[in-house]
Amino acid sequence: MSLLTIYFTPLAGIFALVFVWVLARWVLKQDPGTPRMQEVAGFIQQGANAFLRREFRAIAYFIVGLAALLLAVFWPQWQIAFGFVCGALASMLAITIGMNVATRANVRTTQAARTLPGKALTIAFRGGATMGLTIVAFNLLGISFLAILFGVRPDNPENVSMLVGFGFGASLASLFAQLGGGIYTKGADVGADLVGKVEVGIPEDDPRNAAVIADLVGDNVGDCAGRGADLFESGSDNLVATMIMGLAFMNPMPEYGFAGYGFAAVLFPLLTRSIGAIGAVLGVLAVRGTGKRDPIASLNLGFFTTGIFSVIAFFALSKWVMHDMRLFWCLTLGLAAALVSALIVQYYTGSNAKPVQEIAKAATSGPGINIISGMAYGFESAVLPKVFIAMVNVAAYMIMGGGLPGFFGIAAATLGITEMKGIIMAGDAFGPIADNAGGIAEMSGVGEEVGTSADVLDAAGNITKAITKGYSMSCALMTSVVILFTYITEISRHMGMPLTEVVYHARFVLVDPVNITGIMIGSTIPFLFSAQTLHAVGRTAYKVVDEVRRQFREIPGLLEGKVPADYTRCVDIATRDALKGMIWPTVWGVVFPLAMGFVFGAWALAAFLIGVKIIGATLAMFMFNSGGAWDNAKKFVEDGHLGGKGSDAHRSSVIGDTVGDPLKDAAGPSLHILIKLQNILSITMLPLFLEHGLHLFQ
Amino acid sequence: MSLLTIYFTPLAGIFALVFVWVLARWVLKQDPGTPRMQEVAGFIQQGANAFLRREFRAIAYFIVGLAALLLAVFWPQWQIAFGFVCGALASMLAITIGMNVATRANVRTTQAARTLPGKALTIAFRGGATMGLTIVAFNLLGISFLAILFGVRPDNPENVSMLVGFGFGASLASLFAQLGGGIYTKGADVGADLVGKVEVGIPEDDPRNAAVIADLVGDNVGDCAGRGADLFESGSDNLVATMIMGLAFMNPMPEYGFAGYGFAAVLFPLLTRSIGAIGAVLGVLAVRGTGKRDPIASLNLGFFTTGIFSVIAFFALSKWVMHDMRLFWCLTLGLAAALVSALIVQYYTGSNAKPVQEIAKAATSGPGINIISGMAYGFESAVLPKVFIAMVNVAAYMIMGGGLPGFFGIAAATLGITEMKGIIMAGDAFGPIADNAGGIAEMSGVGEEVGTSADVLDAAGNITKAITKGYSMSCALMTSVVILFTYITEISRHMGMPLTEVVYHARFVLVDPVNITGIMIGSTIPFLFSAQTLHAVGRTAYKVVDEVRRQFREIPGLLEGKVPADYTRCVDIATRDALKGMIWPTVWGVVFPLAMGFVFGAWALAAFLIGVKIIGATLAMFMFNSGGAWDNAKKFVEDGHLGGKGSDAHRSSVIGDTVGDPLKDAAGPSLHILIKLQNILSITMLPLFLEHGLHLFQ
Repeated sequence: MSLLTIYFTPLAGIFALVFVWVLARWVLKQDPGTPRMQEVAGFIQQGANAFLRREFRAIAYFIVGLAALLLAVFWPQWQIAFGFVCGALASMLAITIGMNVATRANVRTTQAARTLPGKALTIAFRGGATMGLTIVAFNLLGISFLAILFGVRPDNPENVSMLVGFGFGASLASLFAQLGGGIYTKGADVGADLVGKVEVGIPEDDPRNAAVIADLVGDNVGDCAGRGADLFESGSDNLVATMIMGLAFMNPMPEYGFAGYGFAAVLFPLLTRSIGAIGAVLGVLAVRGTGKRDPIASLNLGFFTTGIFSVIAFFALSKWVMHDMRLFWCLTLGLAAALVSALIVQYYTGSNAKPVQEIAKAATSGPGINIISGMAYGFESAVLPKVFIAMVNVAAYMIMGGGLPGFFGIAAATLGITEMKGIIMAGDAFGPIADNAGGIAEMSGVGEEVGTSADVLDAAGNITKAITKGYSMSCALMTSVVILFTYITEISRHMGMPLTEVVYHARFVLVDPVNITGIMIGSTIPFLFSAQTLHAVGRTAYKVVDEVRRQFREIPGLLEGKVPADYTRCVDIATRDALKGMIWPTVWGVVFPLAMGFVFGAWALAAFLIGVKIIGATLAMFMFNSGGAWDNAKKFVEDGHLGGKGSDAHRSSVIGDTVGDPLKDAAGPSLHILIKLQNILSITMLPLFLEHGLHLFQ
Repeated sequence: MSLLTIYFTPLAGIFALVFVWVLARWVLKQDPGTPRMQEVAGFIQQGANAFLRREFRAIAYFIVGLAALLLAVFWPQWQIAFGFVCGALASMLAITIGMNVATRANVRTTQAARTLPGKALTIAFRGGATMGLTIVAFNLLGISFLAILFGVRPDNPENVSMLVGFGFGASLASLFAQLGGGIYTKGADVGADLVGKVEVGIPEDDPRNAAVIADLVGDNVGDCAGRGADLFESGSDNLVATMIMGLAFMNPMPEYGFAGYGFAAVLFPLLTRSIGAIGAVLGVLAVRGTGKRDPIASLNLGFFTTGIFSVIAFFALSKWVMHDMRLFWCLTLGLAAALVSALIVQYYTGSNAKPVQEIAKAATSGPGINIISGMAYGFESAVLPKVFIAMVNVAAYMIMGGGLPGFFGIAAATLGITEMKGIIMAGDAFGPIADNAGGIAEMSGVGEEVGTSADVLDAAGNITKAITKGYSMSCALMTSVVILFTYITEISRHMGMPLTEVVYHARFVLVDPVNITGIMIGSTIPFLFSAQTLHAVGRTAYKVVDEVRRQFREIPGLLEGKVPADYTRCVDIATRDALKGMIWPTVWGVVFPLAMGFVFGAWALAAFLIGVKIIGATLAMFMFNSGGAWDNAKKFVEDGHLGGKGSDAHRSSVIGDTVGDPLKDAAGPSLHILIKLQNILSITMLPLFLEHGLHLFQ
């Protein structure tokens, strides 16, 4: 059984990858439209690829440096450094593939929207699905390849803990990619909007705006590649952490009446993810635009197909592989949690619910009250999802009867929620493609022909984007609880202490002043990190604003549309500033946990990680939802409510949107990655802290 | 010695109260100015007193209801319910006295500014000092009166734990007062500014603005009474919690080489606060405006006088009463922490440092970037103070040699920082008096005569306000750590378990999923609470805006200044909405910890409280400092930089200020109280949870 399954998981990965190839071929076969459309799309492709190239070059220094450090620390063990490099490369390769399909699907979506509106949805969705499936496939392939290479077998399961290197590498590369992409896209977007919409009063994506190409490139490098990186790393960290944690559940624990899962405990995460990969392929096949149906109904069909397949497969997995039906309930609970958290986000950011409408109404009293109202709803929106996730945690713990086996229940629920990753990501990457498609139509003068069909797609894209964010925050929160427990199991392994003794160790109590210090310091990290990201966006936007203003001032005939704007200058500014802006937050993100572990020890570091996670998750939800709500409040006004475009309410709501943009697309998503990066980094470096730390308090 | 000291503390309280009477008499003897000035001041007094009356009536229902509940729960023990009522009454009485002196000092400050500029500082400062000293005096008198009444004696120290009722009552009344006052002042302020400054373009405090009296009333009921309530409750909670905790340090702990302080451990907090009361009186006497010196230099003289007296008295206290010089170092460390946290806040909110100037510069690119920049600095500003406080905690813990005695070291450091309360509060209440003085000058047409001397006072008031906020956040953070430990000592007392066993209890570990759930839920509370407060401010401001717009539209001749505005309508709107807005946040604040303790048990409740405190403190710092920085960035522009008044940068910076106002003066300060209310409530209700809780996880 076990030997069979370790070869089954790469097969599921290869199956998904083959399907990616089929999808990509299908997308490329579609009509790319007029020469002008292809020219605009070419600008976007060039800008996006140039950015990725320069970004990867910057990341390479860190990868090489840290790989050397890991090699030195763990010498003669080469596997962690090797896994680290593999994780980083896999992350970069996955987002490169995904983004390159996306930058080709955009113009084809525009063309379909002109000629066959029903097909536009299918193209955009399948373009996005390549990103979703590539990520799941690379997660599975990378980790099972390393597991086989490191000789992880039923008689030698311990080597699975060497996989942390892969998780660390994936996290680091992804944090860079999300930060760089996020700063780029929001610097360009805010800059373009501030001069274009607010000062000069020209529409979005107007070719006279010098920052418009940079803005469209940003959709790809930020929303598409950045989010892809985010999901790649959370997928890897989740798999790696749960596999390592599985080591503790191979053998029976008589004191809890727990029978032990054998080697299946280690393979369990890979199996659930394989189910997710196959489910995502089925889901993608189920989505087909007909031109008559609401796009969201089509997308929902895809989600449901994946969901139903997953529940059936979970049943089989729990009954015949794990021989523990309690796991089925935990997995299904996690799946349900994905649904509920998506619904809550839809309430707080959807145009048809109270929050967005109230925020829009507040805009009639000016930008100040609009922003206060959005902040208030943003704060509020963090409450329910988090209380709900907390309850799911306790429920999964209780389903397994509490105690140590309860931790495995929480891990199973986490695998249940993260299992939907492939199909959710497909829906998400659809958003920037639809966004780009609209921009290309505007830029190449076919906006009229495309008409409302692009708007319909864009609105659907906004909903899927909001769903993904709520979903990935819930995943991150659940995952970080599991990673914490993995951290404990690793302490037990490295120190040779029984697990119970580690869990109930005196230095681990809540009220220990050293731990309180750890929580306090940890809780400041997301603030420091967000501050630096926002500073970077603000600085970039400031320079873009300056440049766009300069071009309007110095290029005669630009405002009248007689002379083209110089797009490359803005692309350059955004690229340079984004790369500069991504360095320091990452460095702090790495240095702080290292210093904590080294100075205050492994126990206080666990407290620190709890502080980071608790504040990070709440802050990120606030950022996502207030940002999304401001955005949709603006759209609500633009749709003709409360005075419509050009009214005072509109001007106020544009300012709210500008404030929300860097929160929801730069600082917020990077926080996810930061949380998990610090956890996986701590697990990786644990032997160092235990052996060479200062041990001031032990 | 011990019997002597329990009668010494009420004496220090009476001494402070006599001095309050002298100060108040001195203020009332000053010249109240022209009949028009007295009329305006009369409006403000009436509005403020009417608000307090209606607020107290609303609070009374809750006080009576909760007192009945406490009586029923603890029957036949009447002391907790009685203490609860005393705490609430003492809080309301203290802020009534303080505010009534402040609403008389304002007009006298205006008059002095017209005639004897040097004296204006002295009047404003002494007016504010009555608030600061009344609070310290009532803290000392209320608690020592109850301690004597409950028979707390060296041979019967345990009754000191009945004092929790006083802390709970003080917290509840104060939360209402701060919330109600905060919503009132910011609803009126934002509403007045939005129509006045932004839409109509008339100056601040212009008599044509219908909301201007409501705004001036708000300074008193929010900034003055509200902040007073905040400091009253943190003073009470800190004293009560540290006294109860003292019970655990009366006897020796041989395993830590700790000799035990005897009954002095219980009296220690009262003694340090008495030192603070006397120190504050000396400090107030040292502040004297000469008309030549910079007001801040005068105020600093007051702070230093108190500080130096305190250090000397701490030395005497540690050497001859406590017989443990380590306490001297802990106390002094706390005192130094007060200074450092004030300095950090000055950097982030002062006009002469980088953050405020950068935020102002960002305003030249529009309100969006101005707000992003302010948020970024606000996030950043929470980092250093919190890391610093965390370090102070560990240092105090280490000074006492770690282990259980280390907790007493943290308590001593906390007493050291809170000891400066009286003099700091005197400086803070000075702010709204100076603010009001400027408003009265404007309203009664003597603005020209007062000239720059009011501006100088106003600027000094802004600095002291920022200092107080940074200071009180540090106090709240330190205090909440101490209260948590008191909670543990109470569990040990109620369950009859040795303290060490409670501290290192298995259910108290960080990684227990039930505790993680507690932290997660706790961490959402400050968000829920802030959301509701901001909603209330937004709603109030929205109505005030509507009313001011209506008056400009419907009253002919108002804009030309020929007809007076109808001020009472705006006062009414603000009063009604503020009272409505303060109910729900408080109810949630009380219900959540009760539900947690009842359903999840006493251990998970401790985790919940850590979540509340950690997020609450960080969020509050963000709110204070971003709000303060936006305010000062606006002032920086108004002082003629970056285009000065009327420029685009000015309009943008006014919007930033509007956003920051409810954060820094309504939501932020209420968070302080919430943190401590929930802690003291949990201690009060502990017997209920231990005996009648659901015990699902134990």
